Amino acid sequence: MSDHRILLSEREIPKTWYNVVPDLPAPMKPYLHPGTLQPAQPSDMAAIFPMNLIEQEMSAAASIAIPEAVLDILRLWRPTPLVRAVRFERALGTPAKIFYKNESVSPAGSHKPNTAVAQAYYNKEAGINRLTTETGAGQWGSALALACNLFGMECMVYMVRCSFDQKPHRRTMMQAWGAKCVASPSELTNSGRKMLSEDPDSPGSLGIAISEAVEEAAGRKDTNYSLGSVLNHVLLHQTVIGQEALAQLKIAGAYPDVVIGCCGGGSNFAGLAFPFVPEKAAGKKVRLMAVEPTACPTMTKGVYAYDFGDKSGMTPLIKMDTLGHDFIPPGIHAGGLRYHGMSPLVSLLHRAGVVEAASYPQLKCFEAALKFAGAEGLIVAPETSHAIACVVDEAMKAKEETKDKTILFNLSGHGHFDMGAYEKYFEGGLEDYHYPEEKVREALAHLPRAS
Amino acid sequence: MSDHRILLSEREIPKTWYNVVPDLPAPMKPYLHPGTLQPAQPSDMAAIFPMNLIEQEMSAAASIAIPEAVLDILRLWRPTPLVRAVRFERALGTPAKIFYKNESVSPAGSHKPNTAVAQAYYNKEAGINRLTTETGAGQWGSALALACNLFGMECMVYMVRCSFDQKPHRRTMMQAWGAKCVASPSELTNSGRKMLSEDPDSPGSLGIAISEAVEEAAGRKDTNYSLGSVLNHVLLHQTVIGQEALAQLKIAGAYPDVVIGCCGGGSNFAGLAFPFVPEKAAGKKVRLMAVEPTACPTMTKGVYAYDFGDKSGMTPLIKMDTLGHDFIPPGIHAGGLRYHGMSPLVSLLHRAGVVEAASYPQLKCFEAALKFAGAEGLIVAPETSHAIACVVDEAMKAKEETKDKTILFNLSGHGHFDMGAYEKYFEGGLEDYHYPEEKVREALAHLPRAS
Repeated sequence: MSDHRILLSEREIPKTWYNVVPDLPAPMKPYLHPGTLQPAQPSDMAAIFPMNLIEQEMSAAASIAIPEAVLDILRLWRPTPLVRAVRFERALGTPAKIFYKNESVSPAGSHKPNTAVAQAYYNKEAGINRLTTETGAGQWGSALALACNLFGMECMVYMVRCSFDQKPHRRTMMQAWGAKCVASPSELTNSGRKMLSEDPDSPGSLGIAISEAVEEAAGRKDTNYSLGSVLNHVLLHQTVIGQEALAQLKIAGAYPDVVIGCCGGGSNFAGLAFPFVPEKAAGKKVRLMAVEPTACPTMTKGVYAYDFGDKSGMTPLIKMDTLGHDFIPPGIHAGGLRYHGMSPLVSLLHRAGVVEAASYPQLKCFEAALKFAGAEGLIVAPETSHAIACVVDEAMKAKEETKDKTILFNLSGHGHFDMGAYEKYFEGGLEDYHYPEEKVREALAHLPRAS
Repeated sequence: MSDHRILLSEREIPKTWYNVVPDLPAPMKPYLHPGTLQPAQPSDMAAIFPMNLIEQEMSAAASIAIPEAVLDILRLWRPTPLVRAVRFERALGTPAKIFYKNESVSPAGSHKPNTAVAQAYYNKEAGINRLTTETGAGQWGSALALACNLFGMECMVYMVRCSFDQKPHRRTMMQAWGAKCVASPSELTNSGRKMLSEDPDSPGSLGIAISEAVEEAAGRKDTNYSLGSVLNHVLLHQTVIGQEALAQLKIAGAYPDVVIGCCGGGSNFAGLAFPFVPEKAAGKKVRLMAVEPTACPTMTKGVYAYDFGDKSGMTPLIKMDTLGHDFIPPGIHAGGLRYHGMSPLVSLLHRAGVVEAASYPQLKCFEAALKFAGAEGLIVAPETSHAIACVVDEAMKAKEETKDKTILFNLSGHGHFDMGAYEKYFEGGLEDYHYPEEKVREALAHLPRAS
């Protein structure tokens, strides 16, 4: 039997990113200019993104070379381990084999630095020395702070208010890497001030924080904007995860029946799952499961339509699974999964039946995470706990059916900055939140007319 | 050139612990019974330790086999990476090569689980199902909580009050692994109640917390006590670190001129450095540097004498470097380094000139830690920052002298639960604390008569 932890040497970090676009079952719908409703041109995005990233965003190349300067930083923690969770299997009493890709080993504690480093690099190449961004749970903001610091750039982070209050230590972490972090909505932007005038106690949302960060970047020549999920180039940068996993599974002599990732904007799920899309197209029987919270059921309750990526309607219109850009999800602790939309690539694959979606309530997720911590030691982020809840269900199904099954999931981040959420769970202070149907209808009534 | 991260496979975890006792330059002084002042017998310790661990504590064997059940858990995160800190070298502009052993990758975030797992195992073997312990910064308490959980045992942690208040999330982490954690001094023990009656606002100390944990263990048949540092068997279990490092340095084609570890009770330092003791004795020119805070300068300002391991005088008398068991250090953020004594093995080697000691004030340590975070990404624990401050000095010396030099240090833990300390540092709210001479004299006036 092979090792439980399958490690690759740094020379085995993938040298290219895998682009799913040429392998899509249908062509991607173009982004639309929010004013003209015509397909957005590269120049439409040039106010906030560098041209090299815009080219990646629109690329149909099968793969894109990873620059040496990016690889040089990725090797601080990559390749990440692929681990066979033998103790978790035993605890569940399942015949299933469970593997996880441990992305929590990065300095920022999640998969997010995979794209943060690439985005900082391309902006620096384009002569930009300052980036703005939003963050929900703080994983993305930390990752961009880390990446900017490594390239000697400035970083400004708008953090969703409810997460900012839940996790003050994330802010300090960003500060340790030289970044500035403020609660959103803030008084620093028009978007923020408008929200605060409507609701001074707004818990914030990713949509609002994006509006603030985009507004600041659009208004300053020295500053660009950086997004931690959703967009094509972000998902592209995450495909190192799945490529490594494929190489590691080969060493383990295993192949997954199901690949599972939690899904907020789609980047950790896609990073692991997209490299399996051509395998599936070539006849491999592998299921790709995207897991979201019942409190923000973008794929399972939303519609597939053109919508804004942000609250204020400053972004291009994106054809995606959405709950409507007016939707503000309840303040659940999986802050990274509180987004009204979904990556257009994941949405397309979902609607084409290549990707399955499931939603889980948070109590079941915490329960699964604690079972995992008791068996494997690792305490995961609330986002990741959604993937684990689904793993448990798949493993128990295998048990009932006394079937061999191999499960692969993405351990997207650790929970070291989420102990407040666990504390609330222990105190019985957490409730499940199922998104009510009438709120879906209400939010969807405000979709832009292009939808 | 070899990889920057030198990884070993799980089959390369050392199969034995290295025992430094036969390699000591002088015989170790026996522990003394606190009542009779005669050498303590194994039976004297049987109220709180299982006989198998007492045998290890007193063993003069050159090495001791690691049980398969312990290896089976260690391989959840071991072997840990040895990393060449190329970016840190560049940031310092030093010709020195800097390597670090990354012990922060364990589920509890430090080197502590190396011995926690072994101690839980041996207690379980002896039919014990419940352990008590103390914790300073929380690293040790978390580690024992994790280990007990993996063996299905109960765990009770007395956490030094000032750390308990600084880091409530450590308590939640222990709870996630099924342990109970209370602030010390507590109302649960005679020792705790006595302290509280003298000083209701006591910030606590490791000495007090040890008294509480020992008292509870001594009074309950089903319960033993477990210590996270200081004792021989604890340091023994940590020697997997240095053994792995030696194998990894060989792969890197390097050998250290100096080995550096922070030193509170001595276990992470000894874990890395002890396997170099026979190398040094055989003629290798390697310096072993133990780094402590100026706020608790046990080796650099204390005396080498018999003293109690705890505040209340319940432990055997130990010949060690000590500031006196009455000493309560100021509430610096490196809670794991706030111990009045020092491992008797480290103390003996220090007094014999095999180990060098240095002390650093906390501001310089935070500064060094932030420089390291900016270069290598990782944010370390305040304890570990003491090692890094010393690394910086050694690297800068090499620069001044334009000398080749290889530095190895132990990255004993991450700082994810210490962001409050970093926040205070950023706010300018931290001060250096140099232990005043008159307080040394005062504390040393209360040494027990055997000293």
